[in-house]
Parts: sequence; structure tokens; C-alpha cells
Amino acid sequence: MSYIEQLIEILSKEQVSTNPTMLEQHSHDEGYHASSLPDVVVFPKTKDEVSKVVAFANEQKVPVVPFGLGTSLEGHVIPYNGGISLDLSLMNQILDVRNSDFLVKVQPGVTRSQLNKELKKYGLFFSVDPGADATLGGMAATNASGTTSVKYGIMRDQVRDLEVVLASGEIIHTGGMSAKSSSGYHLNGLMVGSEGTLGVITELTLRVYGIPESIMAARATFPDVQAAVDAVTTILTSGVPIARIELVDDRSIHQVNTYNELQYEEKPTLFLEFHGNEAGLAQDVEFTKEIVTDLGCSDIQFESDTKAQTQLWEVRHNLAYSFIHGFPGKKMMVTDVSLPLTELAGAILDARKAMDAVQLDGALLGHVGDGNYHALLMIDMNNVNEVQKAKEVNEHIVSYALQRGGTCTGEHGVGIGKSAYQQREHGPAYEVMKAIKLALDPNGILNPGKIFVD
Amino acid sequence: MSYIEQLIEILSKEQVSTNPTMLEQHSHDEGYHASSLPDVVVFPKTKDEVSKVVAFANEQKVPVVPFGLGTSLEGHVIPYNGGISLDLSLMNQILDVRNSDFLVKVQPGVTRSQLNKELKKYGLFFSVDPGADATLGGMAATNASGTTSVKYGIMRDQVRDLEVVLASGEIIHTGGMSAKSSSGYHLNGLMVGSEGTLGVITELTLRVYGIPESIMAARATFPDVQAAVDAVTTILTSGVPIARIELVDDRSIHQVNTYNELQYEEKPTLFLEFHGNEAGLAQDVEFTKEIVTDLGCSDIQFESDTKAQTQLWEVRHNLAYSFIHGFPGKKMMVTDVSLPLTELAGAILDARKAMDAVQLDGALLGHVGDGNYHALLMIDMNNVNEVQKAKEVNEHIVSYALQRGGTCTGEHGVGIGKSAYQQREHGPAYEVMKAIKLALDPNGILNPGKIFVD
Repeated sequence: MSYIEQLIEILSKEQVSTNPTMLEQHSHDEGYHASSLPDVVVFPKTKDEVSKVVAFANEQKVPVVPFGLGTSLEGHVIPYNGGISLDLSLMNQILDVRNSDFLVKVQPGVTRSQLNKELKKYGLFFSVDPGADATLGGMAATNASGTTSVKYGIMRDQVRDLEVVLASGEIIHTGGMSAKSSSGYHLNGLMVGSEGTLGVITELTLRVYGIPESIMAARATFPDVQAAVDAVTTILTSGVPIARIELVDDRSIHQVNTYNELQYEEKPTLFLEFHGNEAGLAQDVEFTKEIVTDLGCSDIQFESDTKAQTQLWEVRHNLAYSFIHGFPGKKMMVTDVSLPLTELAGAILDARKAMDAVQLDGALLGHVGDGNYHALLMIDMNNVNEVQKAKEVNEHIVSYALQRGGTCTGEHGVGIGKSAYQQREHGPAYEVMKAIKLALDPNGILNPGKIFVD
Repeated sequence: MSYIEQLIEILSKEQVSTNPTMLEQHSHDEGYHASSLPDVVVFPKTKDEVSKVVAFANEQKVPVVPFGLGTSLEGHVIPYNGGISLDLSLMNQILDVRNSDFLVKVQPGVTRSQLNKELKKYGLFFSVDPGADATLGGMAATNASGTTSVKYGIMRDQVRDLEVVLASGEIIHTGGMSAKSSSGYHLNGLMVGSEGTLGVITELTLRVYGIPESIMAARATFPDVQAAVDAVTTILTSGVPIARIELVDDRSIHQVNTYNELQYEEKPTLFLEFHGNEAGLAQDVEFTKEIVTDLGCSDIQFESDTKAQTQLWEVRHNLAYSFIHGFPGKKMMVTDVSLPLTELAGAILDARKAMDAVQLDGALLGHVGDGNYHALLMIDMNNVNEVQKAKEVNEHIVSYALQRGGTCTGEHGVGIGKSAYQQREHGPAYEVMKAIKLALDPNGILNPGKIFVD
């Protein structure tokens, strides 16, 4: 009996698929990395089913690659060694909303928009907002973040407890429901960002927040990127309750104007959002005006109205689309370094130069409060020369960041795309990571080939 | 040649002590646990010296117990297996203030007040404030927190990078200078709270914050503990920027009144602090008044003046002293559970009942925003019966918390005092922790007997 037939015995016929379309859907993510087919896709419905599948795979030494919605960018879910694609989309229930504890318990297949729809009923929201409507299991696995982490933190900051199936099939809990704990090793933190290489997440207990009383949005243009970043530093020092602060460079604003028939000033631009109470925000508006004016800001617009705020943010959200629209037939490769704040302006300018030097175009935008920025490079994947150039730009951007105390990936994770930089970034700590991997997954069945270069 | 003579060869005569007074000073912490002498105390001055000492100890299989200022409460620094007490007090330099990056680099022997004195020059502060003026190395080792974590987070949230000497003597860095990263396993989080059992911290890169523009303090009395906790939940839901929110029970206020000749209303009392801007805080004051009045608050006082704020907080700070003063000859045993917010009121009331039932007196106070509370039990350490009762109350308090999704220690750490509860709290995850310990410290030389029950 083949191992796939055995999987049918463990689960059921309906939960095990070798349908070519299904295999193809589980052979890639949303990034630029080469695809690779799993042998089989399985759809467990409970933690016990996950446990049985993983324990069986461990005995058989068959790779297991957890799969949420496949929105990752660095090849995390691509089964390069074949084996089982463990699709968690049937485990998509919101199990418990403990609103007075600011906690929710969810299954890994729940998406962030699904959760926020439910939380709204309680005046609560979940803060982490990556570009895609990813699953919460996937977001925990990659330690995702987005535009709000400057105020609310990243995915790791929201995780109170994970139920995890280990390589052996054993089920553990990595934390509890308390807001803080000094009890034992921080397995929550270790599992978040481990990208399915240490275990399969089957349940998450997450922190949620009260929807702020008032929201103020703003758009401000600056003479140069350095002035924009300096404004961010001053605003952060002052303690103004910034909830979002996004930087878009002048070239990128030009693209948005061109493809949306808009007339925004084509200068480095900050998109901001403040969360607080009405009186406090009014004072913040005045203070922020002063700061940015001192730093040469030529135009700042505040919006307190929800509709006008949506319009303001649309410019930022349309950025990627404006480039995709402007470069038909090309694909987008996204870099993701993060640096100390004082190094960010230099990094962004250097990235634009590096792109110009090899005549690759694309957007440059940053989650400035975190020192994290993305170059969205437009490349023709069939043009070997262009793909090579893009890889060189990525390599250049990563090297620049690593030389200045930064990281090769701020929020997308390692997957296959950043594994080559792990040794360089972490030095001897890389061996510690390997030792942990070996201790928890001695047969190397969990998402093999990810994070570590074999 | 004895191993102590060899240590003199590795370091210098002045850095190696077997002076009985010195050994005694390194035989206990500030808790109630039995003392135990190290064989020797060493005072390294550099990471390389730490590395040499640890590598040597590993070869010789001699225990190494890192020591900061000895302010821990659960016996973390007590060398129950003898060996080397590694005193890091000579490594007490603030190495770098990167004010525009909101980062500082410090040696492990720097205390939090020493750091805050330096940061004040830049308009910055370090947020974590445990009761003692502990070293930052010790605070990272135990994942300390205090009154401000409801807004600024716990010690683990402030750590960007640690330089750590492993059992082998190898020196690693666990993170970087970027505000966020999804690169590799979260070794920062793993090392924070590992209590010297996985490595010795020789340098810390920490996050710091801008001093808030305005601070408002308040004191509010409630008919019962439940009403006080309900007020906290409502305030947190509303998004009011609470920076501190401490609960003290009625019995404890009575003690403060008695020993400080004060006339505060002897009811459950909240001490609050808000950080923000002036206009925002004015609105928060009105809003908070409404909330607490609705919940039966009989008296609320706000203080915007610094001197009046100090006076207000003195009541809270004098609590422990008022009990020590009131029970001459007795020692204080401190419990430290943390629970989901909705379970906190019940837990505090139950703890008071448990104390009354065995006729043990003491304070009850909570970092309510985190669900963390302490019972400060006054006990005669020479009275075997009373010590036994205190242990039973602690056991009762821990069991109550663990049954409700809480943790046996919110901020003090495990040490020897909470090791017996690790298996119960973590279940099979306890074995994962053990596997990590074994992978990183195969000879078990690093702070043996702590966290894990051998």
C-alpha cells in the first residue's frame, strides 16, 4: 500500500487529493520562486487528524509542508522535496471571543478579514495587516506584520498561545491566556516565525484591541527622503500616537499619478494615521504640522472623515497595482529588509540607485516606523538577464542592510528566498537555530529546505 | 592545581574571590529561599573573559551561576550545586545611546536607574520598572516587568539583541538593531527569561521611548475588587492611553493608613497613570471619571502636578514597607501569578480568603492591566508551621491561576521557587524546553537546578 493510500485510511477519501489541479494549486505561493508539486494534498479537520498525519509522515520520513492560503512571498509553502501539502483551510473556525480579556481563540485557517468582521461586533479589532488576506496560522508561521506594527506590534506580539503538533505527532501548547508570563522558555516566540519547520500550528490564542475612539489620517510631501525620515523620528520621540506611517518615494508617486490620472506632488510622501481621542488628535495635528513644516514639508493634508481617509490611503494601496499596470507581462519581486531608523533614508536612496544602475524600475515604499521598506521590482521572468539583475539588486539591498545592523527580512520571512543570507546575518547563532531544529525535528520532515540551507 | 587556581590563571588574582564574606553575598537573593555558597566568585570584565571562564567550566563540568545584583526573588542566583558565581557587576558600562534609533547598547551590570539617568539627557526613558533597581542583564534573564508593561510591554518586548556566551564559550548575537525581523528563529525571545540556563548575557541592545509630553495620575476607590477590575476592562477597551494601573485591596490600604498616619478610604483602590498630550489627557480624565462613577467609584482624585503625583504613588510604593514595619521579625514571601483579566478579581478575593483561612496576613496588589497580582505574605521563617502555611497559600494561589489559563509567574521567573509547577503549567511543552536545554547545554553547567526539576 502506498503512503498516499495509507493517508486515506488515516483520514478519509475526501480529505486526500492527488488531483493535478489541486497539486498545482499547492505548488507555488504569490512570490517569484519556482514551483514544485507535492505528492499529495491532505485536508485535516481537527488537531488529532493533523497529529495522526504528521506522526505517520515522521515514521515514513515523508516531508510535511503546512499550507494556509499560499499568500507567502518567499516560497515558504512550496514542497521542493515533494511529500504532503498539509492544507489547513478546513480548520477555519473562530472558536472563542473573550472580549473582556482582549483575546480570541481561532483555528489556523481563519483569515484576518474573517476575524475582523467578527470582532467588530464587540468593538474590537485584530491589528496585524499584511498586504494579503492571509490566514492567521500562516501569519504566525512567518511572523507577519504590516502598516500598524509601529503602534500595535508584529504578529509575535499578538500571540498568547499556540497549539502545535510536533514532528512526533505530540500536541503542545506554547503559552497561556495571561497577558504576561516569566514561566519557562518562550516557546510562543520560538514557534512564531519558524515557518512550519518546528511544528504545525493547529490553534492560536491572539491578543486583540479596542477600536480607537478617533482616527486621523494625513499625507505629507517632503523635499527629500531624509527629511521625511527625520520627521518620523521627531514624531516618534514626541510620543504622538502614530498608528501607521508609510513612506513612498517620488518615482512611485509619479507612477500612481500616471496610472490613476491623479496630480499628487511627485515628491517623497508620508502617509500617516493617528489613533486616539478627539481632543488629543486635534493637538497632535497641530504638533505634527509644526514638525513637518520645520523639516521643509511643502504640503500636508489631514483627513478626519472616514471616506476621505479611505481615498487618501487608496494612493498608497494602489501603488503595487500602478506598477503592475504599467509593466504588462512583468512579475513583481519584492525585497523586504529592515534597518535601524537612522539608516533607512540612506538605504532607500541607495536602493533606487541600484535599481537605476541596472535599469530595473519599480516602487519603493517603507513602513518607516519600523525601519522596514520594500522595493517592488518589475521583472520579466522569461528574461534570464533581467531575473539575474533583480537578484543582484536584492543581494545588494540585503548586503547594505546587514552591514548596518539590519535584517534580510522584516516581515515576509526566510522561506527559500532568504535562506542563503541566514548564516551571514546570524553568524554562529545560525548553528544554535540548527541545533534547535535537530532537537525538535530529528528526521527533518517539517518543511524541509526552508530557513536552513541544507 | 585546583580549578579555582586555574580560574586565577585565566583571569587575574583580583578577579577571583573565595573570601567568605564574598561567598556569603553570592549565596542568596532577596527572596525567602535557603542560601547556598558558591565555591568561588569571579568578576569578568569583558565578554572574552566570560567566554574563557564558561568554556573552562564546561570542560571541567563545574556549574556557572550568573549574578547581577542578587535582587531576584525565586532563588535564581543561588548556587545550590556550588561552582562559580559569575558576578557581572564590573561590566556596567552604557556603551552607546542611539537616540534617533530609540536604542541603547549596555553591558549586563548596568542598572535600570543608571540607564534612565543617562537617557534623560536625550528626552528618553527605559520603561521596565521592577521593584528593585536590578541590573538589565538580570532583568532580561528573568523577563522582568513592573507597573508600565500595560502600555510599554515587558522586558522581552524591549530586547532587540543580546550578546550571549553559550555553554561552549562561543559568543552569539540573538538579534539585531532593526525594530522588527522575520529572519530565523526568535533567539532573543528564547534567551530572555531563560534565567542563565542557556547562556550568559554579556551585552544588551534595548528599545527606549520618548518621555511623554504630559502625565496624569489618579487614585480611585471602589466598593469591591470586581468593580475596580471592571473599570480597568472598560478603560482598556476605550483605548485610553493607560501607562500604569495598579490595584490595592482594602486590607492593604488599612495597613498603609495605620503605619503612615493617613486617612485614605479603606476600599479597593486603583492607582492610575496616563501618558499623552495635554488636550488628550484632559479628555481622558473626563471619560475615566464617567467610567468609574458608573461602576460605583466613591472617590477619584486626579493629579497633574509632579509633586502631587509622587505623593499619590507613595501610598502604593509604601505598601510593602507598611507590612514589614507592622510585622517585626517576619519576612515577606511574594506570590506572582498572572491570569486572564476576567479571572483577576476572583483570584484576588480567593487569595485573601486563603490567607485569612490560615491566619496569614499581608498585602494584595495587582498590575491589573496585565492580570498579574502579588500576595505579600508576612511569615516568621523560624516558625515551621507558618512557613508551611505560606507554602500552602502559594500552592493554592498557583493552582487557582493554572486552572484558569494563567501562569505561575507573571514577572519574577521560575528559579527554584516555581520549578515544581513547570510540568503542570506547560504539559508536554515542558519536554520541549528540556530538549532545548539539552541541545544548548549538554553538560548542564549553566545555572543547574533552575527552571527544571532535575
